[in-house]
Amino acid sequence: MIESKHIEHFTGIVGEENIYSDKAHLIAYSYDATREHFEPDAVIFPRNEADVSEILKYCNEHKIVIVPRGAGSGFTGGALPSHGGIVLAMEKHMNKILEIDMKNMVAIVQPGVINMDLQRAVEEVGLFYPPDPASQDYSTIGGNVSENAGGMRAAKYGITKDYVMATRAVLPNGDVIKAGKRTIKDVAGYNISGILIASEGTLAVLTEITLKLIPKPKMTKTAMGIFPTVNDAMEAVYKTMASGITPVAMEFLDNLTIRAVEQTFHKGLPVDAGALLVTDVDGNLEDDLNFQLDQIEKVFKENGCSEFRRAKDDKEAADIWFARRNASPALSVYGSKKLNEDVTVPRAVLPQLLEKFYAIADKYSVNIPCFGHTGDGNVHTNVMVDGSEPQQVKIAYKAIEEVFQATIDLGGTLSGEHGIGLAKAPYMKMAFSDAEMALFKSIKKAFDPNNILNPAKMGLD
Amino acid sequence: MIESKHIEHFTGIVGEENIYSDKAHLIAYSYDATREHFEPDAVIFPRNEADVSEILKYCNEHKIVIVPRGAGSGFTGGALPSHGGIVLAMEKHMNKILEIDMKNMVAIVQPGVINMDLQRAVEEVGLFYPPDPASQDYSTIGGNVSENAGGMRAAKYGITKDYVMATRAVLPNGDVIKAGKRTIKDVAGYNISGILIASEGTLAVLTEITLKLIPKPKMTKTAMGIFPTVNDAMEAVYKTMASGITPVAMEFLDNLTIRAVEQTFHKGLPVDAGALLVTDVDGNLEDDLNFQLDQIEKVFKENGCSEFRRAKDDKEAADIWFARRNASPALSVYGSKKLNEDVTVPRAVLPQLLEKFYAIADKYSVNIPCFGHTGDGNVHTNVMVDGSEPQQVKIAYKAIEEVFQATIDLGGTLSGEHGIGLAKAPYMKMAFSDAEMALFKSIKKAFDPNNILNPAKMGLD
Repeated sequence: MIESKHIEHFTGIVGEENIYSDKAHLIAYSYDATREHFEPDAVIFPRNEADVSEILKYCNEHKIVIVPRGAGSGFTGGALPSHGGIVLAMEKHMNKILEIDMKNMVAIVQPGVINMDLQRAVEEVGLFYPPDPASQDYSTIGGNVSENAGGMRAAKYGITKDYVMATRAVLPNGDVIKAGKRTIKDVAGYNISGILIASEGTLAVLTEITLKLIPKPKMTKTAMGIFPTVNDAMEAVYKTMASGITPVAMEFLDNLTIRAVEQTFHKGLPVDAGALLVTDVDGNLEDDLNFQLDQIEKVFKENGCSEFRRAKDDKEAADIWFARRNASPALSVYGSKKLNEDVTVPRAVLPQLLEKFYAIADKYSVNIPCFGHTGDGNVHTNVMVDGSEPQQVKIAYKAIEEVFQATIDLGGTLSGEHGIGLAKAPYMKMAFSDAEMALFKSIKKAFDPNNILNPAKMGLD
Repeated sequence: MIESKHIEHFTGIVGEENIYSDKAHLIAYSYDATREHFEPDAVIFPRNEADVSEILKYCNEHKIVIVPRGAGSGFTGGALPSHGGIVLAMEKHMNKILEIDMKNMVAIVQPGVINMDLQRAVEEVGLFYPPDPASQDYSTIGGNVSENAGGMRAAKYGITKDYVMATRAVLPNGDVIKAGKRTIKDVAGYNISGILIASEGTLAVLTEITLKLIPKPKMTKTAMGIFPTVNDAMEAVYKTMASGITPVAMEFLDNLTIRAVEQTFHKGLPVDAGALLVTDVDGNLEDDLNFQLDQIEKVFKENGCSEFRRAKDDKEAADIWFARRNASPALSVYGSKKLNEDVTVPRAVLPQLLEKFYAIADKYSVNIPCFGHTGDGNVHTNVMVDGSEPQQVKIAYKAIEEVFQATIDLGGTLSGEHGIGLAKAPYMKMAFSDAEMALFKSIKKAFDPNNILNPAKMGLD
């Protein structure tokens, strides 16, 4: 427990209305999307960068642990106060879009801005912020940057890191730093923004983020391909991408996922299909979009696609996307406990990866429905079991370990977009050598010698 | 001078044929494109990563300075052995394209591969590596990554950092690390590749680089706009980019540059024009390219463009590009000494930036011809004086200091693509706060506690 004199000090900085230390609020801030929970000692809502600086400086002097938090929607526990201390919550005050600079096509935001609020604001003026994690309706840009969030549109437009031009941040000692510029090119000094991205709040507290925007493409078209086998669909994915077409999205559902969606929502999906691929293309000219869809249809059909459906209007497009967007909740038909991983491999080994996952499912007699962003090799892999059966849960964790090993063996990564946090920390040593782990620790120490910022995350303790 | 026992040890690692310590060779490796020179104590050509590891480990134990080198074509002295020691030259053995993975659209190369060799190899199989620094015919990928090289195509396709997916590198202690994957998404662990990019060989020695490739666009078209004033042209640049069109290149020559090219090459350029803009668009459909050029012409003409010339064929395109490509050598008509900087600002302040530069030119009575990659706000600013007049050279350096200050005042950076090295090290404190410099130093120390790797670069000593 934190001493009351510290709480008094923080109250002096931010005012009584901006600090919680009562039980009810501590419980409210003890969760994130992992459903794990750890109570903090206090929750503080900084009003501005100066508050953040004063708070960090004090915490550093008194070795008080501090955990930055956006919406708490992370899947790996990055925002959980696993070692108690202060939760620094950005949602109340530091949630402003400070500027949309149309001339330079740049947005400057505070970390607590919700992703979708930014998307809407920039689209209103004809610009586009592509990163669209599934949590876009509630997750914050600060969290997106800290975890390097991906999304549906990554196949064409990349991920959060591809849009971060500059950051302002507070170091654990209270120093405010600026990194990067409102320029496409900047090679003066070390790429500090580059290392802050995906650092999960362990190196510094973000206070301002400058994001690249692009012109909003004038139109989008949607299509769906039905495949007899997963293998055919996975071959079609990388062959499409290598054919010279870059679809905005190339999303996939396997048979188990198709069945779960159909059972839950009754949309007339082809329940005997081995896999569905859902794709969007965009651009400024109707002819260009048709050209892209023609190419995709050609590659799909060369790879076993039995039916290629083009959406004729927005309603048909929404119908096609419905299955993909509702895949995750529908999976509960296979069990109350879902171990949901976001492993990613080079696209061309997707066929082998899926084969390995289904072999693991067979071995442990569990269902492992898969869906996800195959355009960028990112497969949401869900080991489903009955959460009330401890033996089942134990088996699920064994299966997950093999899922990670299979991914790493194929040149993939533990996480494509969710981060490591607490949930994947035990697997870091499967993915990184001693030398690499030692380097991570020395970087952590360079920024945060007293280890006050989000300790124990990423397997660094 | 390095002790002969050390030379013997290195000879034992790489063999006699792969180490030089004779005067002639030391002089050959004492230069780069800055024309500054510092002799190393020895030049070693590692055969492979294991050699690099052994050499670094030994250097670290004996505190011997080591400077990695690609082609030595840098403009800021990044590869100069300013503190003597070993030059680790990658061009002899570590110069292989290891793999072009067409399925995943990825190339894996050693650091000594020449940029253009990679471009040609991937284009032969229908793929595209966009970063095209002016040095592309001789600069190496290792150098490009270490300086985060830009190029003509950055306006649409970004710069080197946008293509680095993964790196292998040797730390100063000899440890080999892998960072990143052959995947679009990877958020496990700190973004080590992100911090190695643009680190100018001060943190680790790159031994292998995995680069993203994209499908090669089927066609390109070129056009030129003639403007009465620089201000009109600069307005047209950012308005074009903000209009929804992203040209591959949007290059600019000011009146002084136009005159220099015309005087040197007699190409019939409009010597009374305030500025020329040269632009390329690309894509897969003729109609799409025409659409893009129509939009550009419209915005240009709304902003004072007096003539818009579309190249009808490759020859006309080459003629249009000739002026831009030969701008740099032509400037010698204004003096034998050129202080060539690559400052970069947010595009929308280009008009003010150029105004400030010409005011500086007036103040010091020097010529400051400007040209460059205005599509990304990157202006090659050349203070031209008579190199045989020490007083003139002194004035030139004063002017350059004001060029930097004007750039920083407008939210710009000291360097868009050349890096800091030795040449810009004195100006780092204009651009970075004490806290930022302290952070750079602590990162340097985390990687290289004995400061053996390329010391004194980037103003860190």
